[in-house]
Amino acid sequence: MKKTLFVTILFIAIASIFLLGNISKPNKEKQNTSSKYLDLSNSGITDAKDVTPIIVQALEKCKKEGYSGIRFPKGTYHFYPTYAPDFYAAITNNDNGLKRTPFPIFNFDNFHIDGGGSDFIFHGKMLPFIIEESNNIKVSDLSIDWEVPFFAQGTVVRNDSNANTFDLRMETPYIVDDNRIYLTIEREDSPYEQNFGFRYAKQEKYHQRLGQNIIWDRSTKAPIYKHGLYSGFDNSFFFEAKKLKDSTVRLSSKYKLVPPVGSVFISKGEYLNNRENPGFRVFKSKDLLFKNINVYHAGAMGLIAERSIDITLDSFNVVLRKGSNRLVTTNADATHFCNCKGLITIKNCTFENMLDDATNVHGTYARVKKVISDNQIAYETYHPHQKDYFFASKGDSVRIVDQNTILPKSDILIIEDVKRVNEKVSILSFNKSVKGIAKEYDGIDNISWHASAKIENNTVKNNRARGFLISTSRKVEVRNNYISSQMAAMRMSGDLKLWNESGPCDSLIIEKNQFVNNLHGGNKQAILLIDPEQELSGYKGEVCYHKDIIIRNNEFYTFDSPVLRAESVDGLIFQANRIIQTDAYQPIFPDEPNLTINHCKNVTIKDNTYKLLTGAYVDLSLNTDIE
Amino acid sequence: MKKTLFVTILFIAIASIFLLGNISKPNKEKQNTSSKYLDLSNSGITDAKDVTPIIVQALEKCKKEGYSGIRFPKGTYHFYPTYAPDFYAAITNNDNGLKRTPFPIFNFDNFHIDGGGSDFIFHGKMLPFIIEESNNIKVSDLSIDWEVPFFAQGTVVRNDSNANTFDLRMETPYIVDDNRIYLTIEREDSPYEQNFGFRYAKQEKYHQRLGQNIIWDRSTKAPIYKHGLYSGFDNSFFFEAKKLKDSTVRLSSKYKLVPPVGSVFISKGEYLNNRENPGFRVFKSKDLLFKNINVYHAGAMGLIAERSIDITLDSFNVVLRKGSNRLVTTNADATHFCNCKGLITIKNCTFENMLDDATNVHGTYARVKKVISDNQIAYETYHPHQKDYFFASKGDSVRIVDQNTILPKSDILIIEDVKRVNEKVSILSFNKSVKGIAKEYDGIDNISWHASAKIENNTVKNNRARGFLISTSRKVEVRNNYISSQMAAMRMSGDLKLWNESGPCDSLIIEKNQFVNNLHGGNKQAILLIDPEQELSGYKGEVCYHKDIIIRNNEFYTFDSPVLRAESVDGLIFQANRIIQTDAYQPIFPDEPNLTINHCKNVTIKDNTYKLLTGAYVDLSLNTDIE
Repeated sequence: MKKTLFVTILFIAIASIFLLGNISKPNKEKQNTSSKYLDLSNSGITDAKDVTPIIVQALEKCKKEGYSGIRFPKGTYHFYPTYAPDFYAAITNNDNGLKRTPFPIFNFDNFHIDGGGSDFIFHGKMLPFIIEESNNIKVSDLSIDWEVPFFAQGTVVRNDSNANTFDLRMETPYIVDDNRIYLTIEREDSPYEQNFGFRYAKQEKYHQRLGQNIIWDRSTKAPIYKHGLYSGFDNSFFFEAKKLKDSTVRLSSKYKLVPPVGSVFISKGEYLNNRENPGFRVFKSKDLLFKNINVYHAGAMGLIAERSIDITLDSFNVVLRKGSNRLVTTNADATHFCNCKGLITIKNCTFENMLDDATNVHGTYARVKKVISDNQIAYETYHPHQKDYFFASKGDSVRIVDQNTILPKSDILIIEDVKRVNEKVSILSFNKSVKGIAKEYDGIDNISWHASAKIENNTVKNNRARGFLISTSRKVEVRNNYISSQMAAMRMSGDLKLWNESGPCDSLIIEKNQFVNNLHGGNKQAILLIDPEQELSGYKGEVCYHKDIIIRNNEFYTFDSPVLRAESVDGLIFQANRIIQTDAYQPIFPDEPNLTINHCKNVTIKDNTYKLLTGAYVDLSLNTDIE
Repeated sequence: MKKTLFVTILFIAIASIFLLGNISKPNKEKQNTSSKYLDLSNSGITDAKDVTPIIVQALEKCKKEGYSGIRFPKGTYHFYPTYAPDFYAAITNNDNGLKRTPFPIFNFDNFHIDGGGSDFIFHGKMLPFIIEESNNIKVSDLSIDWEVPFFAQGTVVRNDSNANTFDLRMETPYIVDDNRIYLTIEREDSPYEQNFGFRYAKQEKYHQRLGQNIIWDRSTKAPIYKHGLYSGFDNSFFFEAKKLKDSTVRLSSKYKLVPPVGSVFISKGEYLNNRENPGFRVFKSKDLLFKNINVYHAGAMGLIAERSIDITLDSFNVVLRKGSNRLVTTNADATHFCNCKGLITIKNCTFENMLDDATNVHGTYARVKKVISDNQIAYETYHPHQKDYFFASKGDSVRIVDQNTILPKSDILIIEDVKRVNEKVSILSFNKSVKGIAKEYDGIDNISWHASAKIENNTVKNNRARGFLISTSRKVEVRNNYISSQMAAMRMSGDLKLWNESGPCDSLIIEKNQFVNNLHGGNKQAILLIDPEQELSGYKGEVCYHKDIIIRNNEFYTFDSPVLRAESVDGLIFQANRIIQTDAYQPIFPDEPNLTINHCKNVTIKDNTYKLLTGAYVDLSLNTDIE
C-alpha cells in the first residue's frame, strides 16, 4: 500500500465532494441532452488508491451540469466502500439491505457510463452499479471484479474414504474457528478493526460459515460429474474443520463420497447473506443498454433487473478472467429479469462458471393472504428473497391464479390502489369484486409486467444449475445459443410453492441452438424441462398451463437419454431437431425415455433424428399420455 | 386458537384500516389540545386474537381527529406482527432493521396512551412502541411481555465433570440440529411456513444458536456466584448439543466447571441478532412520561431513548411477572439513554433480572476518520451497534478529544453542517479550524447532548452486569436507591476503545443509597467503579477526566473487600458512608483494598465506618497515589 499517496489522493477526493454539495440520494432534475462527456483523465483517478469518492463526485457534477456521459481513461481502478454512499435496497431474489455504491444512478436520463475498456476492482461489500428510476442509460466497455471473492475455493489434496474426510489447500481467504471453516470477505482496516474487528467479523458476516458447497472438476472447469455425491446446497451440512500443520484444512463430510484428489471445493457462504453484492441492480428504469462488459465476479447475481422496461445486454459477459485460478464467476445467476416488460434482449454474451443459472425471465406470484372486502385483498410474499418485492402499482392488470392448478380463475382485474403494510404484506384494491373467487393462498399474477425476450448468439457453459429459465407470457425467441449447463439447458416452470415464479409461456420459440452435454450434475431432469408445478391435488392438466412452445432445428449433443420433458402445454412442436449421442460422460439415466410428454394438447413431433455413438440412427423413445 | 372468531375480527380490523386511509409513516400535523380520549371499549379489541391492526387504525384516527389520548379497557391483548407496519430504525446500542410496531408514534404532540392496567402480549419479532419526533407524550398503566421470550432457559438436571457435559430440561422453545442447540422465536403460521419455514428459520434467525450464556441461581433468582466459571459471553463457546431420550439436552461445555444441578442455563442467542426487539424506542422526542409500566420481557433493552429531551420514568418497572418460571426480564439493559439532554428522571422503578445494566446515561464519541480541510472532518462510528448513530446536527457544540488521554484538545466547535455518507461515515463542518488539532482516531464529544439525571428511590437487583452507568457532564443525582447487581453497582467510565461511551462526569452526587452484596459475579471491579479508560500511552492523569463526584451517606452491605475504585477525578468526596460486612457469599478478592484512588486531585475521605461481621469497627484500607 502506497499509504502516503493514498492519503493525499483521498484527501483531495473527499475534499472535492464538499465543493459539490450533498451526496445523498439525488432528486430528479431535468438534464439537457447534449453529447458532452465528462472526461475523467485529469480527475485524479489514475493515481487514487480508492476512486469511489472521485466517481461519486463526478456523477453529481454530471447530473448538475447536464453531461450526457462520463468517460474513463483505460486503466485499472479500485473501489473501496469506505466513502461510498449507501442506500437501502430491496432486491428480489437477492439479499436486501444498505448497499454501498460508487455509481448511484438515481433519476438519470440519457446518460452513458463509458469505461473505456477499464478494469474495475471492488473491495469488500459493495454494489458496483445501482440504476433506479432512470431512462436511456448505457453502460459500456468495462469489467467488474473483486479483489477477494465472496466464495471459498480450495483444491482437494488428500482424502480418506473411511474417515470421510478430505483436505483442502485453500486458494481464497479463510479462517478455521469453532471447529468450522469460514470464508473471509475483505474488510476495511482501522485501529478499531485491528483491536476489535475479529470479535464481530462472524456476526457481521465478514466471516461466513461454509455449507452450501459444490465440487468442481479442474480439468473441465465445470461442476463435477454427479456432484450430489460429494456436495450439497443443504445448510445443515456444515463441515467440521481442522487446520493441519501443512496449512491445509481437513473437512469432515457427511456426503456419500469424499471428493477426488485434484477436484476443487467451492462454497458461497451463508444463505441470506451470500447474495448481498450483485454487480448491477436495475429498478424502475427504461431503455437500458449494457455493452462490452465483463463481469468476472459478483457476490450475488451479475445483473438483476426488476420492474424495468426494454433492456439490452450485448456482449455482457460473465466470465472467468484469463489466467485466473478461480473456477467461479458469480455467486448466483449471471442475469435475472423479474417483473419487467417490453423487450429483454440478450445477445452475443458468454455466461460461464456461475453458481446458478444464466438467465431467468419471470414474474413473481404474490399470494392471497386475506380477502378483506369484495374488491380488496391483502397479499403476502413468502420467500425470504421476496421481502419488499415490488409486485404492482395502480393501473396494473392482474389475475387471480388457483393455488392447485396455477391456472387463472378470475377476470383481468385492474389495480386501483396498493398500500404497503410491511415488507411482506400489502393491500390491493381492484376495480371489481373478487368475492368467492380469491381464496387464501391463491396466487396473483401481474400480467402487465411480463416481458418479451430475444436471446440470441450466446454461450452458456460450466455453470452450476441451468441455462435459461423462461416464465413469461409474452413472445420469447431463443436462437443460435450454445448451452452446456450442469442441469437442464432450459426450464419453463411456473410454481406456487417455494419460489412462486410466474407465469406461463405463450409463444416461445427455441431454434437453432446447440445443447451440449447438459445434465451431468445428476439431477433427474431433461435438457429441455417444461414442468409447471401443478401436481397438487392430482390435477391432470385438463387445461394446459403453457401455450405454443416451438422447439425446432436444434442440435442436442448428449451423453444421456432425457432430451425433453413437457407437461401441460397446449401447442407443442418438437420438430427437425438433431440428437447426437456423445461419450462425454457415462449416462446417468439411460433407461429414461428421450421424450416425456404428459398432459399436453396439440402436440407435433416430427422430422427429428437421433444418432447413436455407433453411427446408427434410431427413433427417439417417447413416454406420453397423448392418445 | 378460536380461529373463526379470529378471522372475523381480523376481517373487521383490516377492513377498517382502509376506511381511514394510508397507514404508512404519518406526517406531522397540527393537533388540537382538547382532552378527548379515544375509548377502545367498543373497538373490537376485547374479542380480537390480534389487536395490532385495530390499534394502528385507532392511532391514525386519533391523529387525524386530534384526540389527546387513547384508552384501553383493562384486559389482556395480543399483538401479532402480521399486519403491523414496519419502519427502518437505526437504534444505538441495539440492532438496526425494519421494525414492526402496533404503536407507530411518529410526529404526535400532547398524546397519552393509557393502558388502563392492561397486559400487552407480543408475538414474534416486534417493537412494541416507537416514539419519534413527538412531544409531550405519556404512556401509562400497561405491561408488555412476549408469549415466547427471546432467550433460552433450561434447568440443569445432571452434570458430568469428567466429560464436561451438563443436561438441561428446557423451559423455552428450542431445537437441536447440526449438533447445536438453537432457541426458537415465535413465527407466524401459514401454508408456506409449514412447507418451507424450517428451511429458512436459522438464516432468518428465528432459530438462533446459543452461545452468549450465563448460569442463574434458582434460589437467589440472581446470576450464579462466580458465573465466569461456567459461562461466558464469548461467541466462540458454541455448545455441542445432543437431544437425549428423556427430552433433555446434553451440552458439551468448554468452560472451567460444569454448572451445578438445579442451576439454570440462560442464553440470549446470536450477537447482532439478539437486540432486535426493544420494548420502547424513543428518538428525537421531548417531554416524555412513562408511568406505571411493567416490562416483563423485551428482546433487547426495555427502553432505549436517543437524541431526546426531558424524559421521566416513574414506576417504569422491568420485573419478572409474578408466578412466572422465567429468570430473566430483558435481553439487554432495562433502560438506556444516549445522546439525550435536559433532565432524565428515573424514580420509583424496580429493575430486576436483566441480562445487562439497569441504566446507562451517556453520549457516544464519534472518531475522526480523516481531516478533510481546515474545518471539515469525516468521522466514523465503529461499533456495530452504532451504525447510523445520529451523532450531531447543525448548531451542536462539540469538542475534539485526544485518543490517548480522552481529554479535550480543542476549543468548543460549532457544527455548521453534517453530511451523512453512509451508515458509518459522515462529514462535519465546523465554525473554526481544527487543523493541527484533530488527528485520525481522536474522539469527538457532542457536549450539547449530555443530559442531567435524577435517579431516586429505585431498586436494582438480580441482573447480570451493573446497576447505573453514568457518563455525562451535566448534574446527576443518585439518591435513595437499592442496588444489588452482579458486577459494580455503579460505573463512571468514559472510553475511546470498544464502546466509545462519552463523556466525563461533572457534579455527580451519590447519596443515601444502599449497595447490597454487589460483585458476586467474580469480576475484579469495585462497588463504585470510576475508571475512565486512559491507560493508553501511559497517561497518568495529570489532568483529570472526571470532576466533582460526591459519595456520601450511603450504606454498603458487602461480602467482599473492594468498595470504591476511583481514577482521574478532580474533586472526589467519600464521606459519611457506612460499610457493613456480610456473609452472603465467600469473599472473592479479600486482599484487595477497600478503597483504591489513583490519579485524583482534591480528594476528601472522612467520617466513613466499616463494621466487620464480628461487630468490630475497623478503618477502611486505602491504596492510593495521593501524596
